[in-house]
Amino acid sequence: MLATIERAMDETIRMEEIISLAKRRGFIFPAGELYGGLAGIYDYGPLGSLLKEQIKKLWRDTFVFGREDIFLIDAAIIMGEKALSASGHVGGFSDPVVVDTKTGKQYRADHLIESFGVEHAENLSLEEMNQIIKEKNILSPEGNALSEVKDFNLMLKTELGASADSSNIAYLRPETAQGIFVNYKNIMDSMHPKIPFGVAQIGKAYRNEITPRNFIFRLRELEQMEIEYFINPKDWEKYFELWRKEMHRWIELIGLDTEKVHEREVKGEDLAHYSQRTIDFEFDYLFGRKELYGLAYRTDYDLKKHSEASKTKLIYTDPHTGESFIPHVIEPSLGLDRTILATLVSAYREDEMDGKKRIYLALKHNLAPYRIAVSPLVKNKDFIVTKARDIFHNLKKRFGNVAWDDNGNIGKRYRRQDEIGTPFSLVVDYDTFEEGNLFETVSIRERDTGKQERVAVNNLVNYFEEKFSE
Amino acid sequence: MLATIERAMDETIRMEEIISLAKRRGFIFPAGELYGGLAGIYDYGPLGSLLKEQIKKLWRDTFVFGREDIFLIDAAIIMGEKALSASGHVGGFSDPVVVDTKTGKQYRADHLIESFGVEHAENLSLEEMNQIIKEKNILSPEGNALSEVKDFNLMLKTELGASADSSNIAYLRPETAQGIFVNYKNIMDSMHPKIPFGVAQIGKAYRNEITPRNFIFRLRELEQMEIEYFINPKDWEKYFELWRKEMHRWIELIGLDTEKVHEREVKGEDLAHYSQRTIDFEFDYLFGRKELYGLAYRTDYDLKKHSEASKTKLIYTDPHTGESFIPHVIEPSLGLDRTILATLVSAYREDEMDGKKRIYLALKHNLAPYRIAVSPLVKNKDFIVTKARDIFHNLKKRFGNVAWDDNGNIGKRYRRQDEIGTPFSLVVDYDTFEEGNLFETVSIRERDTGKQERVAVNNLVNYFEEKFSE
Repeated sequence: MLATIERAMDETIRMEEIISLAKRRGFIFPAGELYGGLAGIYDYGPLGSLLKEQIKKLWRDTFVFGREDIFLIDAAIIMGEKALSASGHVGGFSDPVVVDTKTGKQYRADHLIESFGVEHAENLSLEEMNQIIKEKNILSPEGNALSEVKDFNLMLKTELGASADSSNIAYLRPETAQGIFVNYKNIMDSMHPKIPFGVAQIGKAYRNEITPRNFIFRLRELEQMEIEYFINPKDWEKYFELWRKEMHRWIELIGLDTEKVHEREVKGEDLAHYSQRTIDFEFDYLFGRKELYGLAYRTDYDLKKHSEASKTKLIYTDPHTGESFIPHVIEPSLGLDRTILATLVSAYREDEMDGKKRIYLALKHNLAPYRIAVSPLVKNKDFIVTKARDIFHNLKKRFGNVAWDDNGNIGKRYRRQDEIGTPFSLVVDYDTFEEGNLFETVSIRERDTGKQERVAVNNLVNYFEEKFSE
Repeated sequence: MLATIERAMDETIRMEEIISLAKRRGFIFPAGELYGGLAGIYDYGPLGSLLKEQIKKLWRDTFVFGREDIFLIDAAIIMGEKALSASGHVGGFSDPVVVDTKTGKQYRADHLIESFGVEHAENLSLEEMNQIIKEKNILSPEGNALSEVKDFNLMLKTELGASADSSNIAYLRPETAQGIFVNYKNIMDSMHPKIPFGVAQIGKAYRNEITPRNFIFRLRELEQMEIEYFINPKDWEKYFELWRKEMHRWIELIGLDTEKVHEREVKGEDLAHYSQRTIDFEFDYLFGRKELYGLAYRTDYDLKKHSEASKTKLIYTDPHTGESFIPHVIEPSLGLDRTILATLVSAYREDEMDGKKRIYLALKHNLAPYRIAVSPLVKNKDFIVTKARDIFHNLKKRFGNVAWDDNGNIGKRYRRQDEIGTPFSLVVDYDTFEEGNLFETVSIRERDTGKQERVAVNNLVNYFEEKFSE
């Protein structure tokens, strides 16, 4: 028990260190901080947005450009009321909320009830929750009486146009998926794909979480990378299995700690109304094991609903058999912010180097904000600086995300590059120009081990190409 | 006069053809079309999102990775009321609106008044507008009486959290710029940049336009690519000139028709309250000459306002002179959707080829959704298909956006690739395997001229690398 508490405390401290590093080093800032902050909303800073771009690029390279059966789309974030009524979100995308009658603070009713030992409280009806709160005399965390439990719709609402006409109500989409389903017909009519095919999208989605928390885990503004893969229902098990493997391949590709990743078969009442099978990919964050990704067999639920509500045929006709049907869907759904959080948790390391405590991010080179940092040993020798600038420009031209770093002494630069996860630090020093050398050489230091080696200047591009192909 | 009317008619038809091609070929779909559409909102389809990604990549490559003084950030779309009050948007980001008292339809009051021969009506006060409407007896386009002119705030509003507390009001940002200004301190504290430096951002912004129109020109959900370049005020003219040149360089880089681009010095009352100098880059769309990009010297207006409202010092201290000041800002602001529209208008061509009318998009290879299409001449000869697949995979691996096209006969494929702007179509045919050849060769057809040449298979990567470096 003591060990468990100690571990939880360690993890809480570790989480705070990661949040602190993220802010200090320009990865992630609390949004609106200048004005007291906005709960559940974060801004990505210079290094965070580079990391984010790398992940998005890798996802597109893997699942869109690396395949032939996936189309990219980029649908609008704002969606109309009719579309989101048809999908079930206007009626059903809600969480049960109770209010502390004294402070006015809101809480998730099911979470409060669960903290009193009731399992799967999210499956209870509002009545059942009210009953339990009464029976168990559950109070707010501040010790005050609670209001009745009510359903609270999680969609962010807005109004389009100047009149207060109700037909102008619109929502910020709660998932990118719906932007794909409502475009099914447009995609069929323009691209004429054959089943199986997928439609992929990266974009923002919004959930008015009652209690946003855990840094970038439970957000009100979040980003998703989703694929809706359209299939013949008879093949669903095959493609479910295929995407399950693809998701594991992705998890390895970005270097998540695979020991922290766990599949959870979602069963019974936990299964969403639209799904016939769902696997949650959970991750051991530093605040418990929670959802990272989801793989769902959504059947034909969404297309059917949109077809009925819009009175439009959303079908597929097999060119060989002539069979017509509403395609079924396998959905690998990835949260981008959670990917970043799991990446930071996987990569964060502390050790001792040269007798001092060291913090570093062991990011894979395909995610690191900068893959190489180039430095002149000193700033007051023109021949050293000029050579370093030359090398910097060449490497930047070839590899893009290469940093120039001439701030402070070399030791400090190494520590700084370690903290932001730069895999290689290159230094032009006096040895570069040593007489008797066959070639000019530079020092290259590897982040994780701190080991240094000398590499010929005219072999640098090859050297890094090899390192980055690993 | 007749020639002018004819030209306007031609342009209207041309515009409709572009909109039709954009939908037919999977570039741009009206959002929410399944449910009757959402005015001023569009979805980018498979080819449109590839085109969009290419433009974003080129912008980042040019202005972020191609330089050393620009940081990327990715701030949230939702911003709090305090931040947008400070920036002046809660109070002042509005258009004058009048309502047709019979139909309830809304109109921009200034636009209506201008159509009655009054110039620069946007600078009139509400009172003056009401006066003119009365004096000139201005009616709605349907001939009905108009309501009083009122200010209508263009920001889209939403509410965060479960209570109807007014402190929960938030907005979808009206420009990406504000997400940069509110992070000035975070960026200084984490990255320690030296002036001059810039912060760049690509992202969505929202304007509740009273009359969205002209396809993707006047949108309610739009995407911007903005840079805020922080400078010492004494240097503003130098950097204004530098960015003016950079914007022209960009316009050439993406292949816009430079004869359609015009600088307009914004003067007097047209100048925004925050700007000391602004140049609009206007473009001859097919519905008149209108704004494409803007270059503004925003002075220290925004940082000053945020500093006052948040009671936080937002200053810069010169490390050499010790001088402290609020940095001034040069802002090159690019609309992404307008870039796409200007690109389509610039690239759309009709000609005759082989005795038939042909439509094609003369997109530069750096923007084309697919840079190469690979085809087997016939589908029923294994040796031809296998060779074509081999080549396809190799080229896709090297160049990414390469299409496989084996649909219909070769003539039809060429026409289809022309319409979506693919610069090169490669065909594996019987000649590929002709005996006596030293090398296997394929046919490569150039989109704009229709000219074909034979290229050795083992030289293809070089061939295209050279073409794409032009």
